[in-house]
Formats: sequence, C-alpha cells, structure tokens
Amino acid sequence: MNTREYKSYFRADIDAIAGYTPGEQPKVNKLIKLNTNENPYPPSPRISDMLKNFDASLLRLYPQPMCDSLRDVIAGLHGVERNNIIVGNGSDDILTIAVRCFSDAGKKTACVDPTYSLYEVLTGIQGGQCVKIPLNEDFSLPENLLELLDGVNLLLLPRPNAPTGNSFDKSRIDDLCANFDGIVLIDGAYADFAKDSCMELAMKYPNVIVSRTLSKSYSLAGVRLGYAVAHRNIIEGMMKVKDSYNVNMLTQKIAIEALLDRDYLEKTVAKIKLTRARLSRELAATGFKVMPSEANFVLASPPDGNAGLYFEALRKHNIIVRYFPGDRTGAFVRITVGTDDEIDQLLEVTRGLYAR
Amino acid sequence: MNTREYKSYFRADIDAIAGYTPGEQPKVNKLIKLNTNENPYPPSPRISDMLKNFDASLLRLYPQPMCDSLRDVIAGLHGVERNNIIVGNGSDDILTIAVRCFSDAGKKTACVDPTYSLYEVLTGIQGGQCVKIPLNEDFSLPENLLELLDGVNLLLLPRPNAPTGNSFDKSRIDDLCANFDGIVLIDGAYADFAKDSCMELAMKYPNVIVSRTLSKSYSLAGVRLGYAVAHRNIIEGMMKVKDSYNVNMLTQKIAIEALLDRDYLEKTVAKIKLTRARLSRELAATGFKVMPSEANFVLASPPDGNAGLYFEALRKHNIIVRYFPGDRTGAFVRITVGTDDEIDQLLEVTRGLYAR
Repeated sequence: MNTREYKSYFRADIDAIAGYTPGEQPKVNKLIKLNTNENPYPPSPRISDMLKNFDASLLRLYPQPMCDSLRDVIAGLHGVERNNIIVGNGSDDILTIAVRCFSDAGKKTACVDPTYSLYEVLTGIQGGQCVKIPLNEDFSLPENLLELLDGVNLLLLPRPNAPTGNSFDKSRIDDLCANFDGIVLIDGAYADFAKDSCMELAMKYPNVIVSRTLSKSYSLAGVRLGYAVAHRNIIEGMMKVKDSYNVNMLTQKIAIEALLDRDYLEKTVAKIKLTRARLSRELAATGFKVMPSEANFVLASPPDGNAGLYFEALRKHNIIVRYFPGDRTGAFVRITVGTDDEIDQLLEVTRGLYAR
Repeated sequence: MNTREYKSYFRADIDAIAGYTPGEQPKVNKLIKLNTNENPYPPSPRISDMLKNFDASLLRLYPQPMCDSLRDVIAGLHGVERNNIIVGNGSDDILTIAVRCFSDAGKKTACVDPTYSLYEVLTGIQGGQCVKIPLNEDFSLPENLLELLDGVNLLLLPRPNAPTGNSFDKSRIDDLCANFDGIVLIDGAYADFAKDSCMELAMKYPNVIVSRTLSKSYSLAGVRLGYAVAHRNIIEGMMKVKDSYNVNMLTQKIAIEALLDRDYLEKTVAKIKLTRARLSRELAATGFKVMPSEANFVLASPPDGNAGLYFEALRKHNIIVRYFPGDRTGAFVRITVGTDDEIDQLLEVTRGLYAR
C-alpha cells in the first residue's frame, strides 16, 4: 500500500533520454538470427573443458579486482605492459568508464554519424553534449574532421565502423591522434575481421585508447569481456571509475582460455571472412548496393531501396537482420555474417524477393 | 615512441579522487582470509551440476539484456512484479547506477559515518557532494536524521551497516522513508544474516530502493550478482543507465540455481550465525569490546584499543582481517565469520596475545 505518490528524483538528464535499445534477443527457436553480430561458431573448445573441471567452490571468493592474470595474457598478446590495460564487463563497460572519465556538462564528446548509437546515449546519461560528425556519402571521414572536433574532449571512433562496416583510413587516424587536443577512443570491437588495426596507436600517442571485445571474433558475447590499451596514466584514471570487481571470476578464466587459443581464433575469423565475401558478392549480383565490409556484418541496400520492406520480408521467413530507420541508414539492412548454411537460406529468400 | 607528451583530459572530479580500495585478495595459500566478508562455505551444489552440464556453445550469444528469467525468480521470492526489479553486475553495479541516476553537482547524496566507503567514492566520481551523517557512539542513527538530510536527493543506507555490523531500528527507517523528500537506497547486502529486513519498504514507498547481493549469504562473490527492488518508475529510469548486457549469461544461470536452493541458503546462514555468536562471546571473554552484529562479520576492539597492532599480529599468524584506520573505526578490526576451524585458530592466537 503506497502511502506516498510517486515523484521523480531522477537527474533531468535521465528523465530526458530514452536509453539504448539492444538488438532483439528473440526466444523463438529455429530463427536465423543475423541481427546482433554474434559469431555463428562456438567459442574455443578449451572453454568447455575448463568449465567442466572448474571447482565451483571458488565462486565464494571475490575475483581478482584488477584482472591481473588476464591482463598479463592481454599484455603479452599486444606487446604492452600490464599497467597499459584495463579490463571491462564487456567493452560497453569500457565505453561507459571512458565517458564517465572524460565527459560532463563542460566536456564534449564527439562521434561520427552514422555509428554505434550507444556513444550518444552514454554522453546523454553523463549530462554531456555529443557532437555528431556526418560521414561522407561513402561513409569515409570528412576532410575537415579536425576542425569539426574543435572544443571536443573525447572522440569515440569505431574502426571498423558500425553499422557501416567500413574501416577508416589508418593514416588519417594517425594524423588525428597526433593533432587532436583530446582523447581518441578507437573502438576495435570488429578489428579482428579487418585488414589491419590501430592497436599500435595506443602506445604511440598518450591520448589514445584502443578497446577490444571478445564478443565478436572470440564468439563470447555471453561472457561480457572487453578491454582497452592506453598510456598508463589513462589506465590509472579509468581504474578509479570502474566498479571494484567489475569482471567476474568465470569470465576472467574463460577469457584467458579464449585469448590463448590463437589457432582457433584465426580459423574462425578466416571462415567468417570467406562467408562475408560470398554474401557481399551474391547480394551485389542480386542488385543490392553492398558497402565494403571489414567487420562480421554487411550493410546492404535492396534493389528498390526499401530496406524496411526487405527486413519485414526476411522476418516472415524467420530470418532476423537489423534495420536502423533514419536518414543515413534507412535504405540499408545490416546482416550479420552467419554460417554458410544460414547465409544460403538468406540468399535464397532474397533472390526470391528480387528476382529480375 | 611517444610523439606527444602526456596531458590529462580527465574531468577534474576524477583527477581529484583516490578511488575505492577493495579489500586485499592475497595470492598466498594457507592464509586464513577473514577480510572481505566472503562466505566460508561453498555455494549451492546445484551450481556445480549446472556448470558441468552447461553447453559452452551458448556463450556465443548475448545474454538476456534485462535478465528476465532471473527477474522472474527474484520477483517470486519477494512477492513483487518483474518490473519492480533491476539486476546488476554485483550490487556495486546497482549502487553505481543509482548514484548516476540521482546524483550530480546539483543533487547531493548522504551516507552515515562510518559506513561502506564506496558511497562517497561513487558520489565523488559523479561530481556530487556527499553529506556524511555521524552515527551515535553506539553506531545507531542520530535523532535529528531527517533534519540533517535537508537538501539531499539520495540517501545510501546499508542495513545491517558495514563495517559496524549493527542493524538500524526498522521503525525509524520506515518513518524516514515516509517523510524524507528524496530516494532512500537501503543496501541489504548483509540482510540475510539479520533478524529482519526492510524489503517490504520497497513496495510500501515509491521513493525506496532495496538492494541485495548474492556475494555474502549465497556465497557467490565470484559471480557478481546484485539486484534491487523498487517502484516500477524507479526501475525504468535505472534501466536506462545500466549497460545493455550488464550481467553475463553464466552469472544469470548460476544466480537462478542459488536463489532456488532455499534450504541450502538457510542452513549456511544458520551455521554462520552460530559461529558469529561464539566468536562474539569468546572475544568479549578475552576482554574485547564487541559490537553486536547482524551481519557475517564482527567489529571488535582489543583490550588495549590498539587495533592496528592486533591486525599486524594476526597477519604474522597468516590470519587476515580488515582494519580501517580513522576516527570512528581506528580502535576496531572487522573480522569476517569464517568456518568454526578458522575462528578457533583466530581465537587461539588472540588469547595468546591478550592473556590476562
């Protein structure tokens, strides 16, 4: 029995925002789920072995607060020191920490448009202003990027970009890091699927953070593990903001197994790249406009440009892709690269819809 | 090779704070670890069974973003609706979300003194002001609490309190919730070890949040699972701020197993309460000042009042407890209630130190 009426005590910023909407996680089986860029292959078999032999009584203890064992593995992988690394509960945790560190009412963030919508949501939660920088028609970086960043404290830049799938010119990003008076966070969620990465910029410049996730290439979206590499002073400040025990014990152990199984990663990524090439080729042959992808998804526009209709038609065939209505993305759907069998089924339905 | 000098782009709030220091997680074996209020007994055996049979290929998928299955179990437990519940990556995540929702430069938080130091740290990160309300000599709530809360938007109040171990008078808290013009977050991390809880206040008043954790009574510090119960509008606002997939798949599944095994919880908690009573009694018999505890730890001051010395002496015997230097707590150590064997060893060393 309420003895008081509800009244909002929320900060105005929170009441004002809608929050980020994650991609649908449908409960129906037999769906072909190509909407949230999950890896279609299982994670490394080493994980299954570890879990079967895991002593559950250890769970009574807190995990390593700083993930030191895991940080040592990551440090070895990238040739950096442990104190250049922070580990997060998914790379969303890394992004949240960064925005809480570098953005407020007086410190602007910036992101390109279109991009991962979470950057703007996080800035809004923080009461900051997010400057949106329109990409060129082909989704490349505008020539006057540095000018547009005047007065910005934190740039959130995914490479490859999502949902467009293209990878920005690396020399442009290097120049930017050298000259921009602020932090550049390069979100490398999809970097393992790309030709090259910007990881070395994290050690070349003291204003650069490069983040990674195990959700995509390592097929571990369920465990929530992301990390960032940066100058030790940046890491030290971010450590103050993270929750004390932000990464649970099993996730730390699973991540170590996955990161050490390099062969498995390379094989899985190679398969996905092959399927991506085939998907892109076949869609183009069916009259689609297909954006070049360096990620594990493909952004494509159907022959009639009516992406909403295509999205709905696929759904009727139990195939779920992602559709982002809006100016820049409304003519496209984003299709996660699934197994060859899943992509065959998508292509078959697609050819049926757009037979010429 | 750095081509730029390091320069701080952090918000001034972040540069200014020291960050929260978690209790030591020593790597040495054979230590008696009574410093971070971990449960000395393993978690429910149902968890081990679940992990052994878990299909690791599922980890390629994102977890349920809102933890719906788990929320249904929690709702059943407390007789509330799913939309009265938010689940967090540990209850620290719940606390972080609450502070980000209800505190900023213009909205003050308050906490009692002494209490869990994280409340003040989180407020500092948010750029807010934390009003510290001194408890009475016996660690009870001051008479003029409501006056002291004037202008405060969020009160963070653990019940039982930590590190003191006492439980505030429930009718005082009920009155407070009815009359305070702001949010009362009652942190029930230790509530399962207490005589009663404030859970029903979450449904009685639309300005009350009651949080819980599985770290202590459920013996699952390693999995990071906390939750809060509150008015649906409060939950809806907090959901906007949480990371999209803030609780990983295994933690969700483990939590369901633990929450459903009520018998195991009750047995474990009963054992800890018995050991707590014995520890309190024996320390008092050795000349200690022992604060009455309703948690899984005991705050106690050695006969000579030199808690720092006692802490160091225990450490030499490979027994680690927690010592909080400072005005109100400097004469005490906080001893986690371990197994009977661990407590026997602590008592033996203690009697040796303070033999009369």
